[in-house]
This record gives sequence, C-alpha cells and structure tokens, in this order.
Amino acid sequence: MQPIDTLIKARWIIPVEPDDVVYDQHAVAVHEGRILDVLPATEAESRFQPAVSHTLSEHALIPGLVNSHTHAAMTLFRGLADDLPLMEWLNDHIWPAERRWISDEFVQDGVRLAAAEMLRGGTTCFNDMYFFPDDTGRAATAVGVRAVVGLIVIDFPTVWARDADEYLMKGLDVHDQFRADPLVHTAFAPHAPYTVADAPLERIGVLAEELDIPIHMHVHETDDEIRSSLESHGKRPLARLDDIGLLSPRLMAVHMTHVEEAEIARVADCNASVVHAPESNLKLASGFCPVSRFQQLGVNVALGTDGAASNNDLDMLSETRTAALLGKAVAGSPSAIAAHTSLRMATLNGARALGIDHITGSLEAGKSADMVAIDLGQLETQPVYHPISQVVYAGNRRQVSDVWVAGRHVLKDRALVTVDEAAVIAKAKAWRERIWEADRHGGECDW
Amino acid sequence: MQPIDTLIKARWIIPVEPDDVVYDQHAVAVHEGRILDVLPATEAESRFQPAVSHTLSEHALIPGLVNSHTHAAMTLFRGLADDLPLMEWLNDHIWPAERRWISDEFVQDGVRLAAAEMLRGGTTCFNDMYFFPDDTGRAATAVGVRAVVGLIVIDFPTVWARDADEYLMKGLDVHDQFRADPLVHTAFAPHAPYTVADAPLERIGVLAEELDIPIHMHVHETDDEIRSSLESHGKRPLARLDDIGLLSPRLMAVHMTHVEEAEIARVADCNASVVHAPESNLKLASGFCPVSRFQQLGVNVALGTDGAASNNDLDMLSETRTAALLGKAVAGSPSAIAAHTSLRMATLNGARALGIDHITGSLEAGKSADMVAIDLGQLETQPVYHPISQVVYAGNRRQVSDVWVAGRHVLKDRALVTVDEAAVIAKAKAWRERIWEADRHGGECDW
Repeated sequence: MQPIDTLIKARWIIPVEPDDVVYDQHAVAVHEGRILDVLPATEAESRFQPAVSHTLSEHALIPGLVNSHTHAAMTLFRGLADDLPLMEWLNDHIWPAERRWISDEFVQDGVRLAAAEMLRGGTTCFNDMYFFPDDTGRAATAVGVRAVVGLIVIDFPTVWARDADEYLMKGLDVHDQFRADPLVHTAFAPHAPYTVADAPLERIGVLAEELDIPIHMHVHETDDEIRSSLESHGKRPLARLDDIGLLSPRLMAVHMTHVEEAEIARVADCNASVVHAPESNLKLASGFCPVSRFQQLGVNVALGTDGAASNNDLDMLSETRTAALLGKAVAGSPSAIAAHTSLRMATLNGARALGIDHITGSLEAGKSADMVAIDLGQLETQPVYHPISQVVYAGNRRQVSDVWVAGRHVLKDRALVTVDEAAVIAKAKAWRERIWEADRHGGECDW
Repeated sequence: MQPIDTLIKARWIIPVEPDDVVYDQHAVAVHEGRILDVLPATEAESRFQPAVSHTLSEHALIPGLVNSHTHAAMTLFRGLADDLPLMEWLNDHIWPAERRWISDEFVQDGVRLAAAEMLRGGTTCFNDMYFFPDDTGRAATAVGVRAVVGLIVIDFPTVWARDADEYLMKGLDVHDQFRADPLVHTAFAPHAPYTVADAPLERIGVLAEELDIPIHMHVHETDDEIRSSLESHGKRPLARLDDIGLLSPRLMAVHMTHVEEAEIARVADCNASVVHAPESNLKLASGFCPVSRFQQLGVNVALGTDGAASNNDLDMLSETRTAALLGKAVAGSPSAIAAHTSLRMATLNGARALGIDHITGSLEAGKSADMVAIDLGQLETQPVYHPISQVVYAGNRRQVSDVWVAGRHVLKDRALVTVDEAAVIAKAKAWRERIWEADRHGGECDW
C-alpha cells in the first residue's frame, strides 16, 4: 500500500482529457499537490493508503474551472451602473469610479471578494487584467487560488503608471516578484489595440518571447473599434497586430465579436487563442463571437466572465452554459458547442491559452490537483442521465461542494477555508458606501 | 392595532407595479392570503398586530415569478438527450420516451419534481402544456403552487386522447374539475399550428370566449414550421391563426423567433401576448425573438423556461437574466431590456398574459400574497448598488430564502414545507432507471 495525502472517490469523474469521457465510481489519488492517478475506486482502495479520504457519492468531479478573462478587482463595482449605452456607462460611471478609487487597497479588497466568489463557484484559476497586478497576485496567494496576473500596459496615465514605459517597467518588476510562486503566473496585458501604440506593442512582442509568457488583450470587441482603427491606421485591429508580429500562439484575443472569415483563418494559422466572454458580449451588446466557426478551423477557444461590472458575476459554470447555448444559436445548429466542448473551453482550453496546460485544466496524472466537486444529488439536477450534460446545462455553482487548488482543500462542503467571509463582505459594504456617494454626485477625478 | 396573519419586513421591496421602483425598509401586510398593504416598516409596526412576523434584513422581496411556458412533467426527461439535431432529438429520444412513459403516474411524479424545483427557485405560478393536465393540477394543489393547466389539443392520438374531439372533451372536463380551485386555473393549449387543424382551432376560439380563458400555443418556433405552413396552407402560421380568429388578447404565442415586422405590428394591434423562452430558443437554435421590437410596439411579452428537456432547468431567475442579456444583443443596444423590464416580463406580464393579473404578478394591495425573498447579503451579490439590477444580473435562485403562495409559507429558509424532498428525488431516480434502459435500447412504442 502506497501512502498518499488524499484519495477522492466520486460517483462520476469527468477528466476533460480524454474528451467527452465520464469515469463511473473512480477515484483521484493526490500526493504533494499533484494528481498521482485517476483509477477505479476499488483499485484505488487496494493500492493507496491515504492520510485523508473523501467519498463523493452523488457528485461529479471536474477539473477546476479556468476563468480566462476577468478584471477581478472590479467586483467592487458590481451593478454600479447597468443598462446604459456603452459610452455613458464608461464616461459617467466606470471611468470616474476607477479614477477616483483604484489603489492597492481597493485591488486587494476587490480581488479577495472576487477570489472568494470564484472559489465558491468552482473556478481555481483566473486570468486577470487590471491595475496593481502585484496586489492581485498577493491576494490570490493569500486566498490560495491560481492566478495569471496581467502586466497591464495602456497609453494613458493612471495611478499605477504614467506612460507605456513605466507600465512595462512595473510589469517586469511584477513578473520578477512572482517568478518562484507556484500559484501566480504572469501575462502581458496590453489593454486593446485602440489604447496601446505600435511601439509598446512591439516591445511586448519581444519581451513575451524572452519571458515565455502569453499576451492577453481585448481584440475586436466592438464595431467602433474596427472603424476607428481603419481611420487611424488604415487597417483593421487584427491586421495591425499581425503586422506588429503579435499574432502567435502567445496571443489570447479576447472577445472577437466582429471578425471576417479571413481573420478567423488567419487566427487559426497563427495558433493564437480566442477568449470568449459571452455574457459580457450580450450585456454590452458587443456582437456575437462565431465560436463554432473558430473551432471548425482548429482555433483554441477559452472562456472568461469578464469583470463583474459587465456580467455581473464571476460564475464560470453559468458562462459555460451560456457559451453552449449561445454557440448553438449563433451557429444555427443545436449540435454545435456540445456540453463537453463547452466544459473543455472552460478548463483545458483556458489552461492552454495561458500556457499552463502542463499544470492544470484536466484531471490527469502529473498535473496539479486543481479539482471541483459538484453535487448532482439535489432535486434541481435530478434525474441524471448524462453527467456532463447535467453539469453544463442544469448545474448551478451553488452545487459546488468542494474545491482543491494544488491539492489544498480550499472549499469544504461549501465553507471557504482560506477566506474570512464576513470580513470580505464587510469590506465590500464599506467600499459601497464611499463609491455610491461619489457616483451619485458625479465622478470627480483625483488623477 | 389591526390583527393580521403575517407581516414581512424586508430591506428592499420591489413591487414591480409601479415599474422600476424599490421601497427601502418597507413591509408587506398579509391577511387571509392577500396583500393588505405595502408600507414603510415603521408605519406597519404601529398599525398592525401580526400573528407571524418576518424580518428579512439583507433581502429583496419580489412578486412570485410566473413561468409562462413549461411542460412540467418533462422534468423527468431532463438531460436525456442533448446537443442533437432537432429531428433526431425528437424522433429518436423525446417522442419514443413520451410514447412509452407518459401516464397519470409519470405526470404526477414529474410535476412534483418540477414544482419543488420551481418553488425553490422563486416561481409561484407556472403555465403548463402537457398530457394529463388533471394530474398536473392535482400535483400543483398538493404542493401549493399556482398553476395554469393547459387543456391540450393535438391532432394525433396519444394515451391521453384519440382525436381532437376527445382532447377537447377531456379538456372541458378538466376545466370543470378546477373551476372552484383557488390555485389552479386553465387555458386551452392547442400544441402548435402544424399539429392542430383549422376545425378544432375554430372551436377552441369559440370555447375560450365562452369560458373566458387564454389560449396557449407554440407559434413560429422554427423556420421549418413556416415553410411547411406555406406549402400546406399557402400562408404563414400567424396569418392562418389570424384568419381563424385566434389573434386576440387571449392568445399567448410562445417563442415567435421568426417574425416579420408586419407580424409584430399585427400582434400588437390584436393585443395578443408573446411568451419568450430564450434559453430553449438558444439550445434548440430556433432563432432569436425580437423582444425589444415587440415591446416598442406595445406587445405584452412574458417569460417561460420551456420544459426541462430543452433548457435543462426551470430556473426563472436565470431565464430573466438571459432575457435581459440576449435582448440587448438582439436589439444591438446595451440599454434594451433593462433589469426592471425583464423582471416585469417574469412576473406581471406573465400574469397578464394568463389573464390573472388581478390575482398575482405584483406586490399590490388586494392581490394574492405570492412573494419571494432573495438574500442579497451573500458575497456573490455584494456590494449592492441597485437591488433590481442585483436580483436580475447577479442573483442566483439558490439565494431565494423564502416563498409564499397565497400567503402560505411554502419555502422557509430554503426548506420546502409541502414537499417530501427525499421522496421526490427517489422517484426521479426510479424513473431514470426505467427511462434510461429503454432509451439506450431504442424507443419501442406502446401506443
């Protein structure tokens, strides 16, 4: 008998790799934070001597969900302003609030709230783009969630940096801070083609190669972005990124709601990833990403919630469902974006886009034990014919019972282990009072 | 001090009528199943002497959600077959399963599962279309949920009836059975234009006037339906219904995903209602209902989940969110289908379509006390800037803490009072074993 840290027996195990497979009455053996084996429960019991053992008799065990695009700290702005035309939303509410409130403290508090929400909903890894990425990384470490913090670059000054050079310099410093951290990874995060000039984008391309990290960027989110690029640069944003050399397997192009067939083919040729954020796209009426078409040409499509200011939750299970539902409607086919395809987008495809698919994204021997148990025994998910279908189409994040990140049991029977829930809520309420007053009286700018 | 049955004080009350209003620190006074008054909490405490009092300090109290289109018993087929082309889904799975399994017992068990799910999710009234509507009504009464049972009519024989005449006769009998029931209402439910001939539709038109009940029908769900109507009748289905005289305030036209501008105008002129089922439309790739356009012309648009075989849940809060999100994308405007508009679709508009808006759909004096409390104090809905926005865009049905139907407290702090949850789940599991075996071995027909 081999002594191990943990053995988790589950009614169903959905490993994601291989695709569209469900293991019945299997177990995951975990030791020193990694998956040792996925095997029949009876076999596991005869081979391993676990220090801790869990039996999940009505549950599906899936890989931790990977939220491939968010702005975690913005959770403090959840629902501040909704149902408004895009420019009114940004000019009168979001941007004034950001200018007034963003600080290291705001980011720490916002990320803790976001991370708590994400863990409770089965997200074990998030890819972030925001100011004070060092604080995002520190909050993630404190909470025990995996994060890819975005080394943000934008052409205008903020409280985080004055100009592209300073953004880059501070970004490189953040990268260095987390070089040895097992949970915090980094990515360059130039905000969007329309907010970053050619020169910094070229430097980012070179630096991303040197540091071997991905590039996380909003691309082709709105019609307007394309129109203004044609005016300023004489080409569409994607063509401009291509000319600068950014179309590569490192690129995570977020949104892509306005694309022509040739652009889809070009993204496929370059092995770039697309990050689909369907609920944000719907809420902001950005357009429809042709997910099924991207996949037909072999593009790796991941999933993200976007920030809570435009969603308004960080619920990856709901996003997975929305992606499957909307993908069918956009493709005009009820067999497009099957449940297992959407679940793969929400896990392994995200890890691959982030360059960490050797670490997470599926339940395979050798990977980090990033795992989520979903209780399907409740009446809302009865009866169970096809566990993958049930998780995606009927599952609710509130049925997530247990979560492990790198083998650490961070959600135990719905209770957060690493987060003081009451303190997180109290801070959210305190921020609300300040933010709300300022929003009502019009945003004055501190910068 | 006036003695009353119940006083419910809530942090926020969202009455739906008036529209887009939130009452802060108010109370609802309930007596003999009805709402006596909605008033400031302090005033209520000095005016009323309640037998039972509730204080919901972090909650929004909203009218019970009205699920305006479902096939409740089909919940037993939840997830039986997904991600398939429409005709394969129907021919190889759903229709064989229905032919084999539908019975009074199946409907009783299925409706109890569905009603339990709906109550736990804040739905206090559902509009049903299925076989054995008498059993649907009896199950609804037993569980204590309000129901409009559909007097189904379809041209082909089933275990419920042989031909249109028998469907009608049995329907009239069901109507009589529930004439005096305070919770069970009826509607004619001719399945769809392509499954019911002109003659029975004409009779339904006459009978609906006589009995003063609505007509609940799938209309313009798919392109195919329109094409085949043009072939068989030389006109589009809606034009045919118009010629038969069914376009009236009694009509609840469900889906309407393929409509021309003139048809929208005609529906508006006739004061017919549209029932929007966005998640089913997405999942079956039926098309996009132009909800915002219908509303611009003054059409009453209600919301429904459709059956759990094509959704796969009966989650009206999620449907409300999807309607708001999708409505913006379809209209191409982030200010279309605001949160309060979608919540009104899910409550008062449903009651109006069903002809019971004098009874339910809003928190107003004189109406039945059909009410739902949603706990916004949890971290997933923090901070709270705008309660309506929070309920619609971030609310999860698992945050529904308490539900009252006609003043009866049927969900108490998440616990179902009228349903034996374990028994409902056990029956769902037992049905699953039988249905699953038959589905795997190909559907043989008993009829």
